[in-house]
Amino acid sequence: MAATVTNLRLKLPVACIILEVIIIILFGTLVQYDSDVDAKQWHKKINNGTSNYDNEFYYRYPSFQDVHVMIFIGFGFLMTFLQRYGFSSVGFNFLIAAFSLQWATLMQGFFHGMHGGKIHIGIESMINADFCTGAVLISFGAVLGKTSPVQLLVMAVIEVTLFSINEYVVLSVLEAKDAGGSMTIHTFGAYFGLMVTRVLYRPNLDKSQHKNCSVYNSDLFAMIGTIFLWMFWPSFNSAVTAHGDDQHRTAMNTYYSLAACTLATYGLSSVVAHDGKLDMVHIQNAALAGGVAVGTAGEMMLTPFGSMIVGFLAGTISVLGYKFLTPVLESKLKIQDTCGVHNLHGMPGVLGAIVGAITASVASMDVYGDGMDDVFPGIHSGQISASNQGVQQAISLAVTLGIALLGGLLTGFILKLPIYATPPDTICFEDSIYWEVPGEEDSHEELTHVRTAEEEEKINA
Amino acid sequence: MAATVTNLRLKLPVACIILEVIIIILFGTLVQYDSDVDAKQWHKKINNGTSNYDNEFYYRYPSFQDVHVMIFIGFGFLMTFLQRYGFSSVGFNFLIAAFSLQWATLMQGFFHGMHGGKIHIGIESMINADFCTGAVLISFGAVLGKTSPVQLLVMAVIEVTLFSINEYVVLSVLEAKDAGGSMTIHTFGAYFGLMVTRVLYRPNLDKSQHKNCSVYNSDLFAMIGTIFLWMFWPSFNSAVTAHGDDQHRTAMNTYYSLAACTLATYGLSSVVAHDGKLDMVHIQNAALAGGVAVGTAGEMMLTPFGSMIVGFLAGTISVLGYKFLTPVLESKLKIQDTCGVHNLHGMPGVLGAIVGAITASVASMDVYGDGMDDVFPGIHSGQISASNQGVQQAISLAVTLGIALLGGLLTGFILKLPIYATPPDTICFEDSIYWEVPGEEDSHEELTHVRTAEEEEKINA
Amino acid sequence: MAATVTNLRLKLPVACIILEVIIIILFGTLVQYDSDVDAKQWHKKINNGTSNYDNEFYYRYPSFQDVHVMIFIGFGFLMTFLQRYGFSSVGFNFLIAAFSLQWATLMQGFFHGMHGGKIHIGIESMINADFCTGAVLISFGAVLGKTSPVQLLVMAVIEVTLFSINEYVVLSVLEAKDAGGSMTIHTFGAYFGLMVTRVLYRPNLDKSQHKNCSVYNSDLFAMIGTIFLWMFWPSFNSAVTAHGDDQHRTAMNTYYSLAACTLATYGLSSVVAHDGKLDMVHIQNAALAGGVAVGTAGEMMLTPFGSMIVGFLAGTISVLGYKFLTPVLESKLKIQDTCGVHNLHGMPGVLGAIVGAITASVASMDVYGDGMDDVFPGIHSGQISASNQGVQQAISLAVTLGIALLGGLLTGFILKLPIYATPPDTICFEDSIYWEVPGEEDSHEELTHVRTAEEEEKINA
Repeated sequence: MAATVTNLRLKLPVACIILEVIIIILFGTLVQYDSDVDAKQWHKKINNGTSNYDNEFYYRYPSFQDVHVMIFIGFGFLMTFLQRYGFSSVGFNFLIAAFSLQWATLMQGFFHGMHGGKIHIGIESMINADFCTGAVLISFGAVLGKTSPVQLLVMAVIEVTLFSINEYVVLSVLEAKDAGGSMTIHTFGAYFGLMVTRVLYRPNLDKSQHKNCSVYNSDLFAMIGTIFLWMFWPSFNSAVTAHGDDQHRTAMNTYYSLAACTLATYGLSSVVAHDGKLDMVHIQNAALAGGVAVGTAGEMMLTPFGSMIVGFLAGTISVLGYKFLTPVLESKLKIQDTCGVHNLHGMPGVLGAIVGAITASVASMDVYGDGMDDVFPGIHSGQISASNQGVQQAISLAVTLGIALLGGLLTGFILKLPIYATPPDTICFEDSIYWEVPGEEDSHEELTHVRTAEEEEKINA
Repeated sequence: MAATVTNLRLKLPVACIILEVIIIILFGTLVQYDSDVDAKQWHKKINNGTSNYDNEFYYRYPSFQDVHVMIFIGFGFLMTFLQRYGFSSVGFNFLIAAFSLQWATLMQGFFHGMHGGKIHIGIESMINADFCTGAVLISFGAVLGKTSPVQLLVMAVIEVTLFSINEYVVLSVLEAKDAGGSMTIHTFGAYFGLMVTRVLYRPNLDKSQHKNCSVYNSDLFAMIGTIFLWMFWPSFNSAVTAHGDDQHRTAMNTYYSLAACTLATYGLSSVVAHDGKLDMVHIQNAALAGGVAVGTAGEMMLTPFGSMIVGFLAGTISVLGYKFLTPVLESKLKIQDTCGVHNLHGMPGVLGAIVGAITASVASMDVYGDGMDDVFPGIHSGQISASNQGVQQAISLAVTLGIALLGGLLTGFILKLPIYATPPDTICFEDSIYWEVPGEEDSHEELTHVRTAEEEEKINA
Repeated sequence: MAATVTNLRLKLPVACIILEVIIIILFGTLVQYDSDVDAKQWHKKINNGTSNYDNEFYYRYPSFQDVHVMIFIGFGFLMTFLQRYGFSSVGFNFLIAAFSLQWATLMQGFFHGMHGGKIHIGIESMINADFCTGAVLISFGAVLGKTSPVQLLVMAVIEVTLFSINEYVVLSVLEAKDAGGSMTIHTFGAYFGLMVTRVLYRPNLDKSQHKNCSVYNSDLFAMIGTIFLWMFWPSFNSAVTAHGDDQHRTAMNTYYSLAACTLATYGLSSVVAHDGKLDMVHIQNAALAGGVAVGTAGEMMLTPFGSMIVGFLAGTISVLGYKFLTPVLESKLKIQDTCGVHNLHGMPGVLGAIVGAITASVASMDVYGDGMDDVFPGIHSGQISASNQGVQQAISLAVTLGIALLGGLLTGFILKLPIYATPPDTICFEDSIYWEVPGEEDSHEELTHVRTAEEEEKINA
């Protein structure tokens, strides 16, 4: 019965192929290379005196690749901590990221401004698409182990769309700053996912709880994800800030915030965990909260001192959240948050938004000089005061929370429809429902031959 | 008996040390820094007004590092999927890559043009050497588990040489374009390796078939390889294209081809696999075919739309190949292709060559503008028509296939000589034949002390 | 009893939080952005005609990220070879690296010159802080498995300070060159750590020896560390050399040294290991010695030929060291060197210092041209002869050895105090003393629910 219901043979292919065909048609009709990518247009620039070395590619691509590693290795492996969900963690992460970055290119293109009916794409749109994908993957963390890949694709379709709308409102309408996405990526992705998992609440999930934990090697695989996220977060926050001091400063602020966050995480983990021992859940997750929490203010003149304080606070609230808040969220609010995205992305994202609002509100020409034009063009031109910029930042947080929660609510109900090959309560957190799973190493002799069963038959025949 | 025959004590040291000494002598007599590396020559340029920031290093080195990761982590870990062949997969990959990149520097140097009897090297030669190494590693995938490291080194000596000849014919004589190596790297490496494994056909390989499969953790290790290959493929294809729009466009086309390929792979895998479940073999391999298939046309004005169609096709044929063609190749043609390189590199490489020929044949000044000079200098200068350029591309594919197949045939017979410590049919796909292998985690107590046996004896004495 | 003594609940939080608070206060009072990071100052430069594209960020940050990967993934996973010490290897590496890079920013800032009482930081200080961290992690390798995280933090406090003093003496007072740190990083870190482990000698360590070895998967995890270190070592050695030919040449020399070293390692490992089989310990470690050994001379006109000879020698002495010297060091000199840092960093570091001294002593304007000013400004300006530069290099090695050995001696005695929750002899090389450790995969059913024990209780209630 379950096998029939969760069989993907028809549903996943239909979803993948229809979505990809739609995307290809839309790309064919709407998308063009921008002028740094198009042969003819770039060479017009060259003929006007531009150097090939001035192509945006050289000043964004290394950052892009670091972000790409965070999306595919970082998020993918971070979620392999579950003992029997590694294939799905890396594999579904791979699938929905590959889908989301295409869909995001279109959605963000619509909202960030068309050029004569066309979406222009280049290295910056590639980074932004990866950013939007990050939000989807955060939501994936909340529902990890309890959803089918078809559900995840449907979630991605809706979430990418709403992300793009929210991003448009925050960055273009409210003219808030949020280069590293404390609000648009982390807060949005976390609260969207938390609302989805709330609607999808499974009262009988305890039937699968014995699989909802790690084993020794799965925790080591997860550390690959953690460390890559930690190392490349400075690139993430600085990937789309203005060139020059802005990128340099954002990377540096993030670096120090993360370092301070890590010390706080180890200290707090040892305080709250059993027998003074360290808990891998905290190390894998809370040590990253410092990157989330400087996502808004990182490009501002936060100073290393300020960055470290923010990172220290973020690590502290994240560990405390894992210890004390997550159990309450599940038991009282019926929010089953598999990866604890509320502790890693939710609260630190809100903290980051608040820090950003405060830092913006005290911005002065005395500190920024002409660099104000890059960070706060409105303040530089006199259109808005620093304190009003801070208010706009705070409003952006409220808008983001609202769209995320309402969007998650809507999405949750759509994902409740019984058409997605959803796993039953008894087989959550388990790869074998959707994957051909080989045996274990300790039973070498009994292993059936997975790869070439057909071949063997033929050989034996 | 087998132990004696496969003992490497004499053979591997002799091979490694003789080869390295030959390389060092040849480097000593033939190789010089190019003018961006040599202190004196670069500072002559500086004195003539060049800026240190114009050094090629800054515009190629990040791409080089991504390619380097693909060669050593990507290929190395992709092949760790076998349950008891992880040491050999990563370790032999490491050995033959470290050898091949040195040998390729010399061979490519000979054919790409000497300067006053000297080979000039710099960041571009480093990338090209890594590219050539990639072809050897593809062939390694075909013979994985069935060859000794000495055989692999001999194969590398010959393959690097023939690769360089083929590359010279394709790029310099036929003036074809193949920046990402759909032909010169993927098609060449795959068909060379397939012919080698055909000649080395083992009728009794079924005696080792129980080891020719994955286990849970080995599949996760393999995903590290897959994801790094997937992420950095845009860097691979764009690493040696012209600066400016060309690198930018190549990276972007590859990115979209891979994304579309991934959706096709998941959809098709679920269609063809047992019970609608996903097969890790497809995800690990077919999702990469999109990178192979835009290796030739990626630098052209393929558009994201075209790139996605190519990627979608590549993923489709690759999954179908794993499902339906690989068993036939083994049973009918006696080609034992361990990693299925025919599906990942062979067919997608040929597809890429065809796409490249078609795309070249429709190139027009209207689309390329003055950018034509970078992509098709012959067309730009009027020396060749676009349709003839397409013909040259097609001829290049034929030449590549011919040299690969003949070269593989020759190499296969050389590798059949009984002097290389080749593993017997009963001990293929098994690390312990060439490596000191420690015990398993589930027998902690019985573990003998591997690292410092001598020490222990002394302590006990 | 042991549980009480090794309980971290009070000690680790106090250490982490006090250290972090001290660092934050010092950063608040002493540290400022440098002029490429500060908004106001950079825009003054912009107003004077500098381009945003000339910001140091673009010419150092990709190298920095590679170094960062080496520090956190490279060192961290290299040490996961122990069967039950993976959490600690990656986790303590993470902790002490995150601490050391902050502390190093301060210490190096003091000694490298204050500006009006302030330490100026930017991308170059970030790289230098990571370098200093590298030395601490090398020392960590010597004491791996036998120290508590509190001990490691105390060691880091002292070692970073002494590293900065030694670096100041070598680079500023003696005006020696050591861009890749053969002396300042590798020799210093190795001999410091060896002296610490000598003082901490445990005569009864054989009680834990059955855990002082690898298992199959732990060796594969370690190879992730090895390969990332190997690939990115060219970035490490070139990260702070002068722009232009210097960075280019350093990266290239390192690349060839490592390639030759790898061939030597495989050849020698097969000669000395049991039955002609390869030993993972050699491959994981000795193949990297080539990077260590060109840390000083890499930026000089060593030629690829010279680099390969150095790499070949380094691999050779490193393998021989693991085979013949390490057991003697333990049995005769009572130096328990867990990772064999003497073979990977100690001897190759000294070799690198000697190669650097020799290469410096033969530097001539004929070879370097005006590039001499970047590599040896003293020789270029006529202040010092080449042979005297060589003497200064040699003196620097002696100074480094002296400070490392004395510093290690002092540190060892400080770490002997019975206040650090040090593991007893019977529970070394074991994660469970400091970490909540989950069960194994082969006992799925019995697994207690680690992540959300509280939740379950509430659900059941």
